[in-house]
Amino acid sequence: MSEADEPNHRDPGYLASIPEDRLRQQLEFVAELDRLKTVLRQTPLTDGSRRENSAEHSWHLAVMVMVLKEHAAAEALDVPRVLKMLLLHDVVEIDAGDTYCYDTAGREDQRERESRAAKRLFGLLPEDQAERLRGLWEEFEAGRTPEARFAAAMDRLQPLLHNLLTEGRSWREHGIEVDQVLERNRCMERGVPGLWRRIRSMLERAVHRGHLEG
Amino acid sequence: MSEADEPNHRDPGYLASIPEDRLRQQLEFVAELDRLKTVLRQTPLTDGSRRENSAEHSWHLAVMVMVLKEHAAAEALDVPRVLKMLLLHDVVEIDAGDTYCYDTAGREDQRERESRAAKRLFGLLPEDQAERLRGLWEEFEAGRTPEARFAAAMDRLQPLLHNLLTEGRSWREHGIEVDQVLERNRCMERGVPGLWRRIRSMLERAVHRGHLEG
Repeated sequence: MSEADEPNHRDPGYLASIPEDRLRQQLEFVAELDRLKTVLRQTPLTDGSRRENSAEHSWHLAVMVMVLKEHAAAEALDVPRVLKMLLLHDVVEIDAGDTYCYDTAGREDQRERESRAAKRLFGLLPEDQAERLRGLWEEFEAGRTPEARFAAAMDRLQPLLHNLLTEGRSWREHGIEVDQVLERNRCMERGVPGLWRRIRSMLERAVHRGHLEG
Repeated sequence: MSEADEPNHRDPGYLASIPEDRLRQQLEFVAELDRLKTVLRQTPLTDGSRRENSAEHSWHLAVMVMVLKEHAAAEALDVPRVLKMLLLHDVVEIDAGDTYCYDTAGREDQRERESRAAKRLFGLLPEDQAERLRGLWEEFEAGRTPEARFAAAMDRLQPLLHNLLTEGRSWREHGIEVDQVLERNRCMERGVPGLWRRIRSMLERAVHRGHLEG
């Protein structure tokens, strides 16, 4: 955890030399974003070569939105809003780290750690932007709008796909059972009902093939 | 280079089991996207720990758009279009690899390699989507619309910032001189004129401090 309200990246004096406050704040935030590339998730890349980081994961979800939006339950989806939400949804992990979705202990204080992180990180920006971007993150977290629900569905679908394509690699590593996967991902039923039916049959197949515990 | 028109990722039979053509094509594309995470660029992360990959780079640029859009030369910018363009702009590197911007030899056949890649990769999608996404990539490549110009400016600004924050790491590794940097990045003058003036003074500072050859 970092000192409150201070950027945490290295700057050999270049950003500090910018005379305009607003631009300097924006570039301090941009520089700080880079650290999300070093936050590792439990999900493996589909070639099994290494674990995925949260920055490339966020990119993957955003492109998935562009390709899979027709599967959203909501008829009129504000797609740009979903994109922005997903681009920002993991930024708090720069301070709070990634919490594995089946880690019950880690999830207990997750919300508090992430709120503190959102305050510091979005707080690097000029006030109007801090408020707007933090608002998008909060909308994602609350999961109440059709946009937040579709975003959450993408966030669940992607690691599921990676697990299927690697023959259940991280499920097997952590001894995860099909009921846990169904319970954890049930929100997909609301965001992308047709896709969720398809995923459920792939999960049955995974159990049958020994890639996921029944 | 892969076989024409075939997805290149591993699928242990899950995607192949999907009965609907359209959904299967979309998920084949989504699975294929994962490979962009293994394409390495010359740019280092700001902590110097490793080289950046093109997927996390694309994410970084998209968030930069959200934060820096007020610096665009164009008054009415279609921001969602810029986001989509940047999310897709490097996908062709899955087949064509990353070409270092100062690699004159590599840049000669770059366009041809990338066109072939665009054909195969976007061609994995249902036809309507293939056309739309490929159109966005072509718009970025042509660089004629205000959206493409702003997107290009972000694509130049980010590695510049990483170079400054790492005391010119990849410039020094490749013996790049300030005139090459100015020439290569001059397009920023059109996309983000105010920011370009600021970057120019940071580059002078970099030469003065020995982080970039004069």
